[in-house]
Amino acid sequence: MPFEWKYERSVPERRPPGHQPAAPRYSLRWTAPRSTLVSAYFGMQAPPGAASAAGHIGRMRGFLAEAHGPQAQEVMRCTDEAGLDNTIVVAYWTDPGTYAHWLETSGFRPWFDDPARLTGDIGYWFEALVVPYDRHETIYSAPGYRIGLARTPDAEIVPITTNGYFGAARDRLPLSAIDTLESPSGGLFPPTADHASRGAHLCALLPHNATVLRSGQFWEGAGREQLDDYMNALQPKLLRGMAYLVEQRERTGCLSLRIMTNLNEDGSPRAETSVYAAFLSLNQLEAWAESHDTHLEIYRHAIAMNRLHKEKREVVTWHELFVPGMGNLFEYVNCHPRTGILPYARVMAPVGKG
Amino acid sequence: MPFEWKYERSVPERRPPGHQPAAPRYSLRWTAPRSTLVSAYFGMQAPPGAASAAGHIGRMRGFLAEAHGPQAQEVMRCTDEAGLDNTIVVAYWTDPGTYAHWLETSGFRPWFDDPARLTGDIGYWFEALVVPYDRHETIYSAPGYRIGLARTPDAEIVPITTNGYFGAARDRLPLSAIDTLESPSGGLFPPTADHASRGAHLCALLPHNATVLRSGQFWEGAGREQLDDYMNALQPKLLRGMAYLVEQRERTGCLSLRIMTNLNEDGSPRAETSVYAAFLSLNQLEAWAESHDTHLEIYRHAIAMNRLHKEKREVVTWHELFVPGMGNLFEYVNCHPRTGILPYARVMAPVGKG
Repeated sequence: MPFEWKYERSVPERRPPGHQPAAPRYSLRWTAPRSTLVSAYFGMQAPPGAASAAGHIGRMRGFLAEAHGPQAQEVMRCTDEAGLDNTIVVAYWTDPGTYAHWLETSGFRPWFDDPARLTGDIGYWFEALVVPYDRHETIYSAPGYRIGLARTPDAEIVPITTNGYFGAARDRLPLSAIDTLESPSGGLFPPTADHASRGAHLCALLPHNATVLRSGQFWEGAGREQLDDYMNALQPKLLRGMAYLVEQRERTGCLSLRIMTNLNEDGSPRAETSVYAAFLSLNQLEAWAESHDTHLEIYRHAIAMNRLHKEKREVVTWHELFVPGMGNLFEYVNCHPRTGILPYARVMAPVGKG
Repeated sequence: MPFEWKYERSVPERRPPGHQPAAPRYSLRWTAPRSTLVSAYFGMQAPPGAASAAGHIGRMRGFLAEAHGPQAQEVMRCTDEAGLDNTIVVAYWTDPGTYAHWLETSGFRPWFDDPARLTGDIGYWFEALVVPYDRHETIYSAPGYRIGLARTPDAEIVPITTNGYFGAARDRLPLSAIDTLESPSGGLFPPTADHASRGAHLCALLPHNATVLRSGQFWEGAGREQLDDYMNALQPKLLRGMAYLVEQRERTGCLSLRIMTNLNEDGSPRAETSVYAAFLSLNQLEAWAESHDTHLEIYRHAIAMNRLHKEKREVVTWHELFVPGMGNLFEYVNCHPRTGILPYARVMAPVGKG
């Protein structure tokens, strides 16, 4: 039996009595216990054409190949809110001590903290989520495709029945059985700050019970019919949904959003995208998912296509979701002031040794 | 059955096969599940006679009485390494969301962050441990006296058998079943930094797998014989042990140590002390406990007295121990540069909103 974590419930589940999901869905389990999961994004931010994506990827791969490196890693790219090119390596550890050792002993920290990073037109950022196991959940539309956390060793994709109703993501978070996972600020969106982040190294504290999601779409090898449907129907709906989340961030609680294209080993784009989004609270993400047209259109279309094609469905959708507690510090070096959660978080600057 | 948390073991236990403890010992359990425990110390640091201890206590009690306040609190005092008087309120929450709400909404943060705190000869500090349940353990020499975490609601003091051998504290940490809890720096003591902390607000990051202990001694109401033994034999041994930990900190890994006297409601001293100590790693605390004369003398004396007096033992000893993961930020406002973990930690300064 794979490792599972269950609390005796004191907060009612959202699952309707007798619910049987219409479509099969899957979740991740490990064959041995895990206490904490680590998902760390290492980004380079540069004007279009100003920096070599391959250079950043190669450098990060070098650091990650040192002792205590991650159990899985991938490369993505995106254009950010300031129109800059971002090259992003995401790395996963399923043991916090290994990650802490890597951060302490690898060449990454000396390179990242080097004052040489503070000049020029290239910024670097590093957003690490260190999250207790009971504060994560995953869902996959198919059991055969491995991505994200699912590429770590000892991971199994297993069938679930906590899906197909609003609130299912919350029910899949083990901690939700005893914790309502509310935002300490009541979801009140923070005022926007305009930090002097260029030429500076700033650390931003992710708020308690923020909700951070990587949502993925994979259509490599899809046939003409499903490819057309994805490109012309589902993807535009996804993009409309993401645009709404950002434009109405005071309502949606969206602190940060990146629509990323996954890259192959050689740096070429894959038929695969990943949306990274951080919200002030799970409540706000749920409110959008349950009631806003832009999500209902995505949801209904995906469900209809799954029903139509059943096991012949060639587009895989999935997500991994974290509701971190206190103490996750995101770091930004020489970045523009709207990068990541910088405008909306409690911000600190490292102090040199006296 | 009270809540318990057990991982299928992959790291061998330290308990010798067939071990039966010679003396009864007790540990804390809650009747309902707990995910995270919070132990927060709020200190005022002042030249002798310069500030009113009652003023700090009253102010902190006011903040803690606001919505989402702690489940238990106590007051202590100590003289620190610079000879300053410290008045300390410790508060416990057994729910991280309630603590996060309190920190976000109470008057404490605006007061603590107020630039008015940066001037004068009084410093304030705030060391909060937010620790997953599986990273804590407790032990009590008797089941009848409640102190520290044991004063929180739904807590029960239950008999245990994981005691009376070296490594028992580690075995009592649920996470130790799957994690060796090593220091990412291999226990290498950090160089001492001398930050310009007077007139500044600094945040210091507790290292991953640091080990933080509150150890208590209670002899209120002890009869003449046991009181004499405590004052003339056990307490001097304790003080010698604590002095060694600090003097040899590069070896012992001791980042911070405070020998505190517990205070009554009216501010008068109790026949009770608490030692707060933070170590770089559990390994180093264990190495001292297992092999150094200063600890063996404490240990043997306490065991001998327990055997002599059995259930008539009038001195209660106990501790609560945490091995926090990443992300615990200790804060210091206008404090001297040797306060707490300031000289030995990664330090940051809050940045105002731009």
